[in-house]
Amino acid sequence: MNDTQTRALAALAPLSMRELLDRLSSSDPVPGGGSAAALAGAMGASLVSMVAALTAGRPEYAEADDAAREIGEAASSLRDELIELAQRDSDAYQAVVTARRLPRETDELRLARARAMSSAIVQAAEVPLRTARVARQALELAGRIAPIGNRNAVSDAGVAALLSAAAIRGAILNVRINLPYLPEDAPLRAEADAELSRLEQETTTLEAAALADVATRIG
Amino acid sequence: MNDTQTRALAALAPLSMRELLDRLSSSDPVPGGGSAAALAGAMGASLVSMVAALTAGRPEYAEADDAAREIGEAASSLRDELIELAQRDSDAYQAVVTARRLPRETDELRLARARAMSSAIVQAAEVPLRTARVARQALELAGRIAPIGNRNAVSDAGVAALLSAAAIRGAILNVRINLPYLPEDAPLRAEADAELSRLEQETTTLEAAALADVATRIG
Repeated sequence: MNDTQTRALAALAPLSMRELLDRLSSSDPVPGGGSAAALAGAMGASLVSMVAALTAGRPEYAEADDAAREIGEAASSLRDELIELAQRDSDAYQAVVTARRLPRETDELRLARARAMSSAIVQAAEVPLRTARVARQALELAGRIAPIGNRNAVSDAGVAALLSAAAIRGAILNVRINLPYLPEDAPLRAEADAELSRLEQETTTLEAAALADVATRIG
Repeated sequence: MNDTQTRALAALAPLSMRELLDRLSSSDPVPGGGSAAALAGAMGASLVSMVAALTAGRPEYAEADDAAREIGEAASSLRDELIELAQRDSDAYQAVVTARRLPRETDELRLARARAMSSAIVQAAEVPLRTARVARQALELAGRIAPIGNRNAVSDAGVAALLSAAAIRGAILNVRINLPYLPEDAPLRAEADAELSRLEQETTTLEAAALADVATRIG
């Protein structure tokens, strides 16, 4: 990775929304869907925090006060972690692109390139797996705040659930597309399938439950 | 709306991602889920443009060249429209908040407040309906690029479909929560239900088709 790329990648979170969307749109594959999924999860976690903040400290939601404060704080950590994962996903994919361009004129160079590729691909699969796990926690929080949070913001809890669920499913696609390129002996190769299937099922269940609560309260 | 609020709202697109997430998280209900849904749709449309840009002009995807160019340009317009809708959603909800705070000491003031509320609520329902319609077009484009675009970026087409679908569903929640507060004679009150149900069904169908194509090509 050259210095310009390093600088550009370090700057994902401080980019303006419009600049970020310009980068996503461009023919440069970095940032791509993995980072977009993580950022959608970060928006979901942020909306959970907003609903919690509109609930805590209000007399009419006194019964939900403790839960709202706990959910709000948890969502705030998940948001920070998802912003970092958006960055790490871009870094990981950039490392794959960089490794792919390494010279392969001699056996030694080919070996070095293969090693760089292996370690880059492992990251490119592990980062979105982590994104899926963290976004799953955001989805769970959206499902907890939906039935008890400020009723005026119940549609925001619903959007939080939808964005977190889309983040999980998008991250899973990014794990799956990289799995076939993992080294034969990478533990993830054998382990990922079961976890991804479980995550998919849990996402369907958690999302449906959250949205049912939202629909009931919208009336 | 006071000057500070006007300035703050005018600045949604130039905000950094981190600032935007801070605003979403705060106890200020603006920006909220309607803007987040539109921005998720804008990320979806951006990813469609990226996949199109990674497809057009490549000899191995020559057959998809014309379609990729057309899809990329269409996605780029949808992205711009969704960024604007994110802004308009925040403006509309801010107008509701502002109208709610208007004085109601005399009959004249109460009438003026009721009129301001009505027109603000109409906007707060119409803007997310527009978001749902535009995000539906983005979902359709994701479904068109998924089977023909650059195979290395097929997971990005999948994330584009997931984010566009979440944007539609999130926007629909924001229409539904406002419908009961619309003036009795607002045409939207009678018309929205049929359109929202149709949009929901189309979203399920289009998303499933796009994801099936992605799954086939990931292998």
